[in-house]
Amino acid sequence: MIRFNNDYSEVGHPRLLRRLLAMGSEQNAGYGQDSHSQAAAAWIRRLCEDPGVAVHFISGGTQTNLTVISAALRPHQGVLCAATGHIHTHETGSIEATGHAVLPLPAADGKITAAQIESYLLVHYQSSTAEHTVQPGMVYLSQPTELGTVYNLAELTAIADVCHCLGLYLFVDGARLAYALAAEGCDVTLPDLARLCDVFYMGGTKAGALFGEAVVISHPDLQRDFRYLMKQRGALLAKGFLLGIQFEELLQDGLYFELGRHGVRMAMQLQSALRSAGFSFLVDSPTNQQFVILPDTVLSRLADRFSFEYHQRIDAQCSAVRFCTSWATRPEDVQALVSAILSAAAENS
Amino acid sequence: MIRFNNDYSEVGHPRLLRRLLAMGSEQNAGYGQDSHSQAAAAWIRRLCEDPGVAVHFISGGTQTNLTVISAALRPHQGVLCAATGHIHTHETGSIEATGHAVLPLPAADGKITAAQIESYLLVHYQSSTAEHTVQPGMVYLSQPTELGTVYNLAELTAIADVCHCLGLYLFVDGARLAYALAAEGCDVTLPDLARLCDVFYMGGTKAGALFGEAVVISHPDLQRDFRYLMKQRGALLAKGFLLGIQFEELLQDGLYFELGRHGVRMAMQLQSALRSAGFSFLVDSPTNQQFVILPDTVLSRLADRFSFEYHQRIDAQCSAVRFCTSWATRPEDVQALVSAILSAAAENS
Amino acid sequence: MIRFNNDYSEVGHPRLLRRLLAMGSEQNAGYGQDSHSQAAAAWIRRLCEDPGVAVHFISGGTQTNLTVISAALRPHQGVLCAATGHIHTHETGSIEATGHAVLPLPAADGKITAAQIESYLLVHYQSSTAEHTVQPGMVYLSQPTELGTVYNLAELTAIADVCHCLGLYLFVDGARLAYALAAEGCDVTLPDLARLCDVFYMGGTKAGALFGEAVVISHPDLQRDFRYLMKQRGALLAKGFLLGIQFEELLQDGLYFELGRHGVRMAMQLQSALRSAGFSFLVDSPTNQQFVILPDTVLSRLADRFSFEYHQRIDAQCSAVRFCTSWATRPEDVQALVSAILSAAAENS
Amino acid sequence: MIRFNNDYSEVGHPRLLRRLLAMGSEQNAGYGQDSHSQAAAAWIRRLCEDPGVAVHFISGGTQTNLTVISAALRPHQGVLCAATGHIHTHETGSIEATGHAVLPLPAADGKITAAQIESYLLVHYQSSTAEHTVQPGMVYLSQPTELGTVYNLAELTAIADVCHCLGLYLFVDGARLAYALAAEGCDVTLPDLARLCDVFYMGGTKAGALFGEAVVISHPDLQRDFRYLMKQRGALLAKGFLLGIQFEELLQDGLYFELGRHGVRMAMQLQSALRSAGFSFLVDSPTNQQFVILPDTVLSRLADRFSFEYHQRIDAQCSAVRFCTSWATRPEDVQALVSAILSAAAENS
Repeated sequence: MIRFNNDYSEVGHPRLLRRLLAMGSEQNAGYGQDSHSQAAAAWIRRLCEDPGVAVHFISGGTQTNLTVISAALRPHQGVLCAATGHIHTHETGSIEATGHAVLPLPAADGKITAAQIESYLLVHYQSSTAEHTVQPGMVYLSQPTELGTVYNLAELTAIADVCHCLGLYLFVDGARLAYALAAEGCDVTLPDLARLCDVFYMGGTKAGALFGEAVVISHPDLQRDFRYLMKQRGALLAKGFLLGIQFEELLQDGLYFELGRHGVRMAMQLQSALRSAGFSFLVDSPTNQQFVILPDTVLSRLADRFSFEYHQRIDAQCSAVRFCTSWATRPEDVQALVSAILSAAAENS
Repeated sequence: MIRFNNDYSEVGHPRLLRRLLAMGSEQNAGYGQDSHSQAAAAWIRRLCEDPGVAVHFISGGTQTNLTVISAALRPHQGVLCAATGHIHTHETGSIEATGHAVLPLPAADGKITAAQIESYLLVHYQSSTAEHTVQPGMVYLSQPTELGTVYNLAELTAIADVCHCLGLYLFVDGARLAYALAAEGCDVTLPDLARLCDVFYMGGTKAGALFGEAVVISHPDLQRDFRYLMKQRGALLAKGFLLGIQFEELLQDGLYFELGRHGVRMAMQLQSALRSAGFSFLVDSPTNQQFVILPDTVLSRLADRFSFEYHQRIDAQCSAVRFCTSWATRPEDVQALVSAILSAAAENS
Repeated sequence: MIRFNNDYSEVGHPRLLRRLLAMGSEQNAGYGQDSHSQAAAAWIRRLCEDPGVAVHFISGGTQTNLTVISAALRPHQGVLCAATGHIHTHETGSIEATGHAVLPLPAADGKITAAQIESYLLVHYQSSTAEHTVQPGMVYLSQPTELGTVYNLAELTAIADVCHCLGLYLFVDGARLAYALAAEGCDVTLPDLARLCDVFYMGGTKAGALFGEAVVISHPDLQRDFRYLMKQRGALLAKGFLLGIQFEELLQDGLYFELGRHGVRMAMQLQSALRSAGFSFLVDSPTNQQFVILPDTVLSRLADRFSFEYHQRIDAQCSAVRFCTSWATRPEDVQALVSAILSAAAENS
Repeated sequence: MIRFNNDYSEVGHPRLLRRLLAMGSEQNAGYGQDSHSQAAAAWIRRLCEDPGVAVHFISGGTQTNLTVISAALRPHQGVLCAATGHIHTHETGSIEATGHAVLPLPAADGKITAAQIESYLLVHYQSSTAEHTVQPGMVYLSQPTELGTVYNLAELTAIADVCHCLGLYLFVDGARLAYALAAEGCDVTLPDLARLCDVFYMGGTKAGALFGEAVVISHPDLQRDFRYLMKQRGALLAKGFLLGIQFEELLQDGLYFELGRHGVRMAMQLQSALRSAGFSFLVDSPTNQQFVILPDTVLSRLADRFSFEYHQRIDAQCSAVRFCTSWATRPEDVQALVSAILSAAAENS
């Protein structure tokens, strides 16, 4: 079985594991108050070109999302996001469990727009019964989105402008940020994110780390007491230095970005081979998630050798499925997948 | 600086790291639905001598406590625990953040009794205004306790009996369980825990793992939908197999228990050397946490070479401090600590 | 200004006020443990033809909804409802504030169907990642709905069957139940509700009471400890006897039902006059809420003499607005409204 | 049975009921946006001598407490209060249900001090693991306290100073405020409360109203969006004008204060008669709650004619019980109670 169903099927990049092994009996302070976490945070501040951002490391994405969002909102506020947003579709109501409503906006390609946000707020505040409805307090975006698409700098700037004008926090979920940063045509950089967002995170779990996400907080109000909030949600890892060490290793010589580029290269090879063969795609994704439309007969032939994620029915014969590449994807596996698809399609025709 | 301030200062046991490194490009299913997690769960069921317990792996202790407790209680219920209980003193209100009150009982040595629990329930249900107060729904114990003491089988059985009679769930926090299982005179075994508790956990973070706790659920009502609850609280790790692999390695040949015994041996060497030198202890702890009463002058001399945790003032001259040994403690470091204490004490007298 | 914007513009029926005044210095036990509350509960059990239902009185609807729903659900569960459902649209995220997601289903006329519920559950449980999404635990209906429509007995029975088969609680919000019970063609009775629902409530606030809703609980699991849950949510009124006295007065000789009939009669007069004049309606409502489609020019002429609620734009010239009658509506005011609409329409043509 | 067990046994003052009855078919806007609520708020602003305070009306005390406290705190914050505080002892964990810990301080006479608060904060912020514990964010006091005692102006000023210096909100629960304002020696006035507190409330339920509490908010941050928070907690009554009308009637000519004085007069008659007869009191209360120490034999003789609240055992023969007078207490009933106690005591001796 070759796995294309997600980007977290392998333990982690061997350099990180060797680094952890080399630590031997080195002792470190707990809860992220160690020199490795500080060094990793310093790397991130440098990469963001902003010495004022606060950096914290958390084990996983759901935990990061719920900690950040519940830290930012007052009880009567909710978070706007794309209807496809991870917090709305795949986190078992984790945001609601902290007391806040998720307010989904339609988003055909996984992206929402500044105009949508502005219009939602206008309707809310013009209503004579605004206080009978949830007040939007934050916008949540994913970069890249759950469909693999990316916001460009103009789009993100417009959203940030609307948020700041209307008193909304802007939060970008970067669980797969390495793949957006490596995407052709994506002109949003880390300094842009640090400047435009109030808070965002750089995902490690899906980009070579064993586990771990680096939260970058620009807004002073969100920086305040954030470690209390992490601890309360169980997001302050006892051996926080494990996260610091991994991000140190990923960032000190650009490994993180190289792993992102590798994943995107593999995805582009897959995309280009399938496009050449005449297959179409649900959306045009420049990152490591590819949503291909394939005949169900092809899919059923693939299922015993490859794992992938069923996404949605397109018509009576065809479905869209997601193939995910990653930092660990081997070119020969992409080639094997392409060949299998082509030969399955040939047999059917 | 030699650290005795806690038992999670090192990365993890090298065998686990080598095992992770050896995984290479092996791919696994996500979210704990992999063969390693299954194998580790099977080891735990075998060690508990109970094929019916459900086993889940969670990254850290606070997350485990809040997930288990909020899964078990109805909104109007709270959890009884020792006033020294970790959930009451050191988790930033994580239980309250899920909507439930913590109901502390006095506990000089970190332990509560069946009689205390019974009496609390009696007072509650005899009150004509019971419904104006929080209804106890669960008892939370730590084995060993936050003061290093252990419940013996008679005590735990009595508590379990009271809980089952009065409709309370019994939950044992085993963050340091390896050290209780290794303690001289502790007659509580894993099969006892599986039989007497509704749910307990075996801590990995403090016993050789990089991170990870194994939750063992006996009660069918708590088994139901537990993975939903984990996901909602951010406690379902994407690479759940990391936890499975580590527990597999810890359990398959008894490494977990050996690491517990090592930590206890180191603690007993420290205790016995200090007792011989005439120092007294806050409580009589047979596990890896030792609460020694020392003159403040001695403490201030130790502070630049050793880290330890200040616990409480005893009188104008003396304080109780906690020294923690672990699976990773080196005999020479215990010896160095003892020598430093003795020579500091000598200089003062 | 004549108010048709809602059905809670007047203090309450004078009989209730006189009854309260006549109480004089009579003293009663607090928190609903008084003889009046018991008598009112007995009336409800008799009317429901079910001596086993539990009855509690709560001050208002939002409080009732959040108390009932949070009492019934486990943390990972959400509540299915029509997208137009009050808990989804007009309660400021009160359900989410108790930790639970609201799961809206499309409902053009305010009603959802057994088939929709069944299909939602099927999709949920067939998903390989069900546990990454909110588990439905309850169905919330309003009778009449927020659009004034009513479920008939066949529809409600089908929904109840699906709920019981699939392990969902069924909860009916009866804030305006008096008007549904009085609606022509509505064959759902109080005994039907008690038999088919796990819990429902009979609204007093909108049906002659000063304030107060009577919660009727059939399911034993929801009956358990319900007073604790009320107290915790601030829903156990100190002078609970105020609620008991009002429901006693409303129910002992059928005043409640007569007030419902009056409200419906007034609505039918309005409807029939406007239909005759050629106006159309958003939905066909047999209860006290009428959603009329009127030219914007007509609406602007009405606005200084009548209050009503803007509902939605229909096209460039027309909007749907809600006129609400009630137990207190005077025939002459309905007549005045009809005349005003007709003359405004005449001026425009 | 003559009730001295609480101060909410009667429907309400007849003047309020007659006023409500006189409203007849007058229609008002819903949700507190009516002229009566505005007039009542204006009265309160005038009495507080502060045109800048925001005033809102809520049905009951528990609802008020949970709405105010959860509106003010961030998720990791808790509320400091006396161990005897109502929110800690008698509200079924309502504060915890909103996600926040209650932090009780010892308080023999029901009162806490500025020094206690300061010292708690000092310990918190000096701890190296402060973020592992709940951060105090608010101080909750009751005026009068649950034991009937009152804070004087010097005490309240000292507490307010500490709160403002240390970044804590100060909230005073005035469920029985009318009785504190009427107490001999209590030099705290409404303008003092408005000036020193960030938020407090004037209770109506226990002071002549059918139900209702008036929340007075001084701090601008707490004023913001408060109606959203009320609605979310079910605390925005549909017929909010019922509350406005009652407070209008209570305040426009001083009835509220006169009712407070009456309750205190009745309590002082009771106290003085029992003191003369040689009985002692648990605390020295100048308000409408009197905690008398009586032989159990006397108590058992009283029980069939009088209701009162058992408070605590004093020794093998004696207990402290609470007798509550109110705006509605009749002098002859106080006399009957005194006589009954004296004659029961005489029979026993």
